[in-house]
Amino acid sequence: MPTLSEVARHAGVTPATVSNVLRSRGRVGEETRRRVLEAVEALGYRPHLAARALAEGRAPTIALMVSSIANPFYPEFALAVERAARASGHFLIICNTNEDPQLGRAYLEQIAGTLSEGVLVTNANLDFADLRLTEARGAPVVLCMWERPLDPPGLPCVAVDFRLAGQLAGAHLMELGHRRIGVIVGSKVSGIHAARYDGFVDAARAAGLDVPAAHVRQAADTVHGGYTATRDLLEGDPSITAIFATNDLPALGAMQAAADLGLDVPRDLSVVGITDILPARESRPALTTVAVPTAEAAELAVTLLRELIEGAPHEAATGTDAAASGQPAPRMCLASAPKLVVRASTAAPRTQSFAR
Amino acid sequence: MPTLSEVARHAGVTPATVSNVLRSRGRVGEETRRRVLEAVEALGYRPHLAARALAEGRAPTIALMVSSIANPFYPEFALAVERAARASGHFLIICNTNEDPQLGRAYLEQIAGTLSEGVLVTNANLDFADLRLTEARGAPVVLCMWERPLDPPGLPCVAVDFRLAGQLAGAHLMELGHRRIGVIVGSKVSGIHAARYDGFVDAARAAGLDVPAAHVRQAADTVHGGYTATRDLLEGDPSITAIFATNDLPALGAMQAAADLGLDVPRDLSVVGITDILPARESRPALTTVAVPTAEAAELAVTLLRELIEGAPHEAATGTDAAASGQPAPRMCLASAPKLVVRASTAAPRTQSFAR
Repeated sequence: MPTLSEVARHAGVTPATVSNVLRSRGRVGEETRRRVLEAVEALGYRPHLAARALAEGRAPTIALMVSSIANPFYPEFALAVERAARASGHFLIICNTNEDPQLGRAYLEQIAGTLSEGVLVTNANLDFADLRLTEARGAPVVLCMWERPLDPPGLPCVAVDFRLAGQLAGAHLMELGHRRIGVIVGSKVSGIHAARYDGFVDAARAAGLDVPAAHVRQAADTVHGGYTATRDLLEGDPSITAIFATNDLPALGAMQAAADLGLDVPRDLSVVGITDILPARESRPALTTVAVPTAEAAELAVTLLRELIEGAPHEAATGTDAAASGQPAPRMCLASAPKLVVRASTAAPRTQSFAR
Repeated sequence: MPTLSEVARHAGVTPATVSNVLRSRGRVGEETRRRVLEAVEALGYRPHLAARALAEGRAPTIALMVSSIANPFYPEFALAVERAARASGHFLIICNTNEDPQLGRAYLEQIAGTLSEGVLVTNANLDFADLRLTEARGAPVVLCMWERPLDPPGLPCVAVDFRLAGQLAGAHLMELGHRRIGVIVGSKVSGIHAARYDGFVDAARAAGLDVPAAHVRQAADTVHGGYTATRDLLEGDPSITAIFATNDLPALGAMQAAADLGLDVPRDLSVVGITDILPARESRPALTTVAVPTAEAAELAVTLLRELIEGAPHEAATGTDAAASGQPAPRMCLASAPKLVVRASTAAPRTQSFAR
């Protein structure tokens, strides 16, 4: 493959002039420009992306850190991110951390600021200190689905009101008449799904219900995790008539458990999740869930990252902390509110006389 | 971030010497080596991956072309590829072609040989001419799941015997006693699933059965495609007792259709697919399928690609064509044979007196 230098030699100009012509920058006379373009044509020169990125002090990819590409949410999200990234001429490198902060750190150290000019982070279980170090090295970082808009993370982020999502899911079950609801939290109790759980508790309080500890299980954020937790909940209290899971995967696991226990969903057990991943739509019965604006969040995240890369001035925060410190707070974009999507996995509980 | 040149200046040596020290190459005296390492330490220099790749005439990523990252097979495959790639210090760029040869060509033109030193191709609907052009530009190409080991593609590939997979799926249904089997081909009739269909026909012939055109549907290789095709097949012939789909996604769609028609799987309708993606294991009933060696194929593909990148001598083909032309045929690695995995979606048909 011919190099920029060979094009320059062929055209009798400096490499910098060739670069200026190809980038439409600097002052280059019409005759020189013609000579350069002829040399490009004659040699079949293609601009070297990595070389150009180096020359300009930036790299042509962005990195997306995900906890597991095998979790169907991330491919859907990655697809939306990639669409947005491609629209701005960026390639997407997907890095699987497998929820391992060490592996995440290795990725960040090796690619941020070199291969990739910016990093999008989903719930990849990364150490915030590592992310701040990445920023300090010159590669902007954006958290893609920050779950608590009222509690900013101190890094640029796209926030989704997941507490509202939990509240909508809970209120739906309670409005149908459910009083004994098993809750599956797909993270540590204080982990990333805590806001979703808090929203469910909000709904319970508004309906005058308790959320006894015996009705709450912490589980792996997987189909299998939801399966095991559901069996455990129903063994502990067979009078449970509904399951709220903080994510669609464990909700799908709850439906599996119901099937294996011979329970009909929704006649014997209602199930509701959060997110609206594709398998939620494709399951039978189709899963009632609270849809979060995945594609919109992806677009907002890419836009925000690009603005940070291009050094657009940070919007000053309006909060008093920021004003007092004189430091603008990192930007936060709030995505649209989650929405309840009622499908076939929820219904009113059977009346007591028909209960198991 | 300090550059190699700054390290060189600090140590009073040439950039080439710094590079040699960091790469443990060339002859460098002990005193010089010590000075360079001190300068690296003092300036906090980190080797610039893209720069190093450029300097060495190679790039540190490989690209994986997939037709849709939203199809659950590809994330599973990408995960296996990434594991293998990371083991050799490569990063993986996943490119979604969305089955659009134009988009695929754009990716190939922009990244092959520049950002990425080699390309892995799954069923991405790419033009072979584009792939050969990519090879000619110096970026090796490996087809990851070639479906017809007896009909090599003329490009390096990992082959999986998908005709055998179709034969195993068909034989399983026939051994259970099914005689009226609906067939869903998840590609054009002559497309990538043709070998799987041929294998089914092999099994039918061996069992003395016809495969009437009225029992075969071509469909999109999606859950929805399988759903529609199944409803269509059962409307056309309600006496069908089993569905063979050339892929798990349409097989899962067949189970959805059965659920919506009030048919019990497997009592009223048996369903079998091919691949063994995660949702096949997670569906209820769990899907009987023919598992293909996904992880093994990913590892073989990465190994083959690395050998091509590193310029290992091509193994000469034993075929007479290759011998006659004097050109070694592109290498083909054959992955292990597919295996039938019997789960809960297949059973003997109900006897005629109980049939619908």
